[in-house]
Amino acid sequence: MNFVEAIGCSWKNNKSLLCVGLDPDFNRIPAHIRGTDEPIFEFNRAVIDATADIVCAYKPQIAYYAPWRAEQQLEKTIEYIHMNYPGIPVILDAKRGDIGSTAEMYAREAFERYRADAVTVNPYMGGDTLEPFLSYREKGVIILCRTSNPGARDIQDLEVCGEKIYMIIAAKAAREWNREGNVALVVGATYPDELMEVRSIVGDMPLLVPGIGAQGGDVEKAVLNGKDSKGAGMIINSSRGIIYAGKGKGFADAARKAAAELRDEINKYR
Amino acid sequence: MNFVEAIGCSWKNNKSLLCVGLDPDFNRIPAHIRGTDEPIFEFNRAVIDATADIVCAYKPQIAYYAPWRAEQQLEKTIEYIHMNYPGIPVILDAKRGDIGSTAEMYAREAFERYRADAVTVNPYMGGDTLEPFLSYREKGVIILCRTSNPGARDIQDLEVCGEKIYMIIAAKAAREWNREGNVALVVGATYPDELMEVRSIVGDMPLLVPGIGAQGGDVEKAVLNGKDSKGAGMIINSSRGIIYAGKGKGFADAARKAAAELRDEINKYR
Repeated sequence: MNFVEAIGCSWKNNKSLLCVGLDPDFNRIPAHIRGTDEPIFEFNRAVIDATADIVCAYKPQIAYYAPWRAEQQLEKTIEYIHMNYPGIPVILDAKRGDIGSTAEMYAREAFERYRADAVTVNPYMGGDTLEPFLSYREKGVIILCRTSNPGARDIQDLEVCGEKIYMIIAAKAAREWNREGNVALVVGATYPDELMEVRSIVGDMPLLVPGIGAQGGDVEKAVLNGKDSKGAGMIINSSRGIIYAGKGKGFADAARKAAAELRDEINKYR
Repeated sequence: MNFVEAIGCSWKNNKSLLCVGLDPDFNRIPAHIRGTDEPIFEFNRAVIDATADIVCAYKPQIAYYAPWRAEQQLEKTIEYIHMNYPGIPVILDAKRGDIGSTAEMYAREAFERYRADAVTVNPYMGGDTLEPFLSYREKGVIILCRTSNPGARDIQDLEVCGEKIYMIIAAKAAREWNREGNVALVVGATYPDELMEVRSIVGDMPLLVPGIGAQGGDVEKAVLNGKDSKGAGMIINSSRGIIYAGKGKGFADAARKAAAELRDEINKYR
């Protein structure tokens, strides 16, 4: 079962399009966990145990581990999900991209070291730089298309013969890069019109949708514009809005409550 | 002294535009080093000691460390250069790029954990994603512009009102992003015409130029088209052509010989 099939199952099994972003900022981890030997892992484990039956995926952002030399806690987090919740795919958010021989190393990092089920990649360097990732046929390759930040306009919205760069990426993803059926795209919830345009090009390809919550994206518009023909097709990520929903000892319960509410709100519009 | 000033000094002091890429492929490390406790660090140290007086910079590629859990050896390599050859800047090749709060973490990774003097970044997500890097005013931010791989054409060569994307990046780098004087660009040696076009836009901004050697770039064309008004302005990288120039116990001497030859060839055309 490849990543796209696996995410299809978890959408169904957990009746959820919600992905929880595991971006643990050390300074926001509750004090009673901060003092443990592996505070980042312990924090993640509590969030995971509290939410695993109501999410479709987890998405650790590697940038939140690297500055603190916490790679081993990232490995442990992913292993913990695989061991305890094998139906829930793990997306490593890393936005890697480099020439072929180097991209091979990055693919190894994501898929062999961290054993992620999918990784996010940056298409700026071109199709050949995606190949080493795409050649892992069981794994998902989630290509940046239209991101959720304000500056996304700078490059992604430039028009080539009336067609914006992100539309060109969407078309290439659907027509060239998806030979193995393992491609998905990142399209931010903060730009619902763009979400609809991309959906119109890529059929039922899964979209990873950041930007709900702290970044201000509207759930109703995002789901109505981004869902696929079966009312699924979206991996809607929330990080800060869930993992920091509460403080102190009740943080995991608060995370579950926030996740359940967001899942239910998403489901209203499917 | 910021990165751009520091590289200016090392161009002069070592009479060299050559940067050695520290991309140690574990399988190509000589057998007598492979058995040590820190083979990647030991390999790098030998290459560094053999070349430090004839290079302008070192560029470790983080992708060659991450799959092998060799982050600590990368830290040690950079620290070794700083301690023993303080005039030689270290560029961390990581091609990072993400939204602001995440980019802050990547900037910490490069500049605080690894203590690199400069880092390569990907501009696809837009100007706001570069800001957390740019705000480290002493550090260099080396933005992908026109890369050395065949697929570079896919996105970077698309034309917007007659202007190619990489030209737009070059113009933004020169006019918007370089407020602190700490920006440089990546332009591949494999495309000398593009090198000349970018040079015509960015004045004397430093260019990091990969693609010489294993990737087939021509030294004469690259230098004639890419040099700045003072016959410098380029950080010309070679990795495999130098670090694997020899095998077995003589590998470091072979690396020095290859580096000296390439430096001299580059200097012919300055």
